[in-house]
Amino acid sequence: MTDLRIAIVGFGKIARDQHVGAIAAVPGATLAAVASRNASLPELPHFATVEELLEKGPPIDAVSLCTPPQVRRAQAATALAAGKHVMLEKPPGTGVAELDPLIAMARDAKRTLFATWHSRYAPAVEPARAWLASRRIKSVHINWKEDVRVWHPGQAWIWEPGGLGVFDPGINALSILTRILPRPVFVTAAELDFPANCQAPIAADLKLTDIGGLAITAEFDFRQTGPQSWDIVAETDQGQMTLSRGGRIMAIDGKVVADAPDQEYRELYRRFVKLAVTGASDVDLAPLRLVADAFLLGRRNIVEPFVD
Amino acid sequence: MTDLRIAIVGFGKIARDQHVGAIAAVPGATLAAVASRNASLPELPHFATVEELLEKGPPIDAVSLCTPPQVRRAQAATALAAGKHVMLEKPPGTGVAELDPLIAMARDAKRTLFATWHSRYAPAVEPARAWLASRRIKSVHINWKEDVRVWHPGQAWIWEPGGLGVFDPGINALSILTRILPRPVFVTAAELDFPANCQAPIAADLKLTDIGGLAITAEFDFRQTGPQSWDIVAETDQGQMTLSRGGRIMAIDGKVVADAPDQEYRELYRRFVKLAVTGASDVDLAPLRLVADAFLLGRRNIVEPFVD
Repeated sequence: MTDLRIAIVGFGKIARDQHVGAIAAVPGATLAAVASRNASLPELPHFATVEELLEKGPPIDAVSLCTPPQVRRAQAATALAAGKHVMLEKPPGTGVAELDPLIAMARDAKRTLFATWHSRYAPAVEPARAWLASRRIKSVHINWKEDVRVWHPGQAWIWEPGGLGVFDPGINALSILTRILPRPVFVTAAELDFPANCQAPIAADLKLTDIGGLAITAEFDFRQTGPQSWDIVAETDQGQMTLSRGGRIMAIDGKVVADAPDQEYRELYRRFVKLAVTGASDVDLAPLRLVADAFLLGRRNIVEPFVD
Repeated sequence: MTDLRIAIVGFGKIARDQHVGAIAAVPGATLAAVASRNASLPELPHFATVEELLEKGPPIDAVSLCTPPQVRRAQAATALAAGKHVMLEKPPGTGVAELDPLIAMARDAKRTLFATWHSRYAPAVEPARAWLASRRIKSVHINWKEDVRVWHPGQAWIWEPGGLGVFDPGINALSILTRILPRPVFVTAAELDFPANCQAPIAADLKLTDIGGLAITAEFDFRQTGPQSWDIVAETDQGQMTLSRGGRIMAIDGKVVADAPDQEYRELYRRFVKLAVTGASDVDLAPLRLVADAFLLGRRNIVEPFVD
């Protein structure tokens, strides 16, 4: 079987920090080109746009879209129309409904559309899911607080409409939550703190539940200096489960039971290579739908302006 | 076949203006009770809550939930758990995801869950759909402007989180749009005007499109005095189609081709009676999903406070 020849589209921080190394490490995947307005990699063909890539570039089988969510849908449609498999960074779109036509295009063209949730591939997520499956869960609390200046330096798009603000990391927590819990959840209340000069929230408190009335709370904050928090804690009839470091470490009543190095993006590309063999798609919109619901039913507070 | 014995839950303006008369007019439907904190109807059993209705009320087969959207989900779950068919006023919920467990409950219990979109039953909607099906549509514009003080007097819930503001009428337009167009649509941009003292927008401008790039614009405004506008205009290769008066009148190039009296709510109850025979459900979340997307990706402007 020949390698899946992939072009990265959008060569910002996440592409450089994660995608390039992951593609290099995964058997069956080859980085063939880069499309980006400004950035490029030495020794790799470079194009300014997806259109130019498809017209003038080397033969490719797939594109991995690492652009901001506001422009991804059009790029995905262009790539699918050209017969390419498409991998989407999270969030998969600026809205939920825009994914439907892409799903239909991929299905009709027998091409893979892979809406990725990298945090679901953190090493302790599947152990957590398995452990919770046989417990009665009493409550869940998410504490997801990071310093936006460290993790998203100069990323103006995150504050624009469709940029999600603190939900850009928060949706990672929701992608884990919707994976590890046995039943679908929904948002019942939300408080969204919008800086006076921003179109996306800098902090959010959510209440969620499921059909059984499980109490789930989530605190998202982009203003966390000092230690960073990416934790999910579940109280059960058989003890407290803590998933920390974004899903990397799992502990039961404080005792670590799973702790492995992060291979999230390698796992994503392993799955992409596998999906592309048959042209199957993998698009789960549950996390994005929860965020849309939080915006829809949330109370908006205006807080002090944010200056990057 | 015996009548479907229906209890109205939430006895506000829409229940009095539309539901009572429609149930009375539809063969096979009988109004058996009312549950409402304050209001009641002479000669009908009255209860304060759904729980009291189910516990102490006369035998009923179904509930029609006319309460504000913020409390409807819990009432629907209670009624379904008691084996009743459930009809939901629009919007079907305060969020999209909260419907999933209700759909599953209804399916498992073989009971009807009917998420209504009354505007889809306006008399010119189906003729418009049929006419557009064989035309090439060039653009669509929605002009949906009404005076909130006339149509929602004192309805404080509409300005609270989950109350939708101008999207409460606007979602009617979107429910028609998603019915008459041949392909699914999605929101690409939105401007939302929030009064400084309100948690829901008083006006909104939307841009939508479909996979073919159709240009769709929508203007919603709750501050319209004088003539009210509930119009959808489609430019096609074979002329201009206008759907006006909320879907009651259809014209081609200015010539009226369909004009019939409004029977929207009678049609809803005819359908509810029919669905309940087999316990089939009818839940289309497309209009609510578009509104959630508009909130998610929309630009928020703060405008002058609204005083009812």
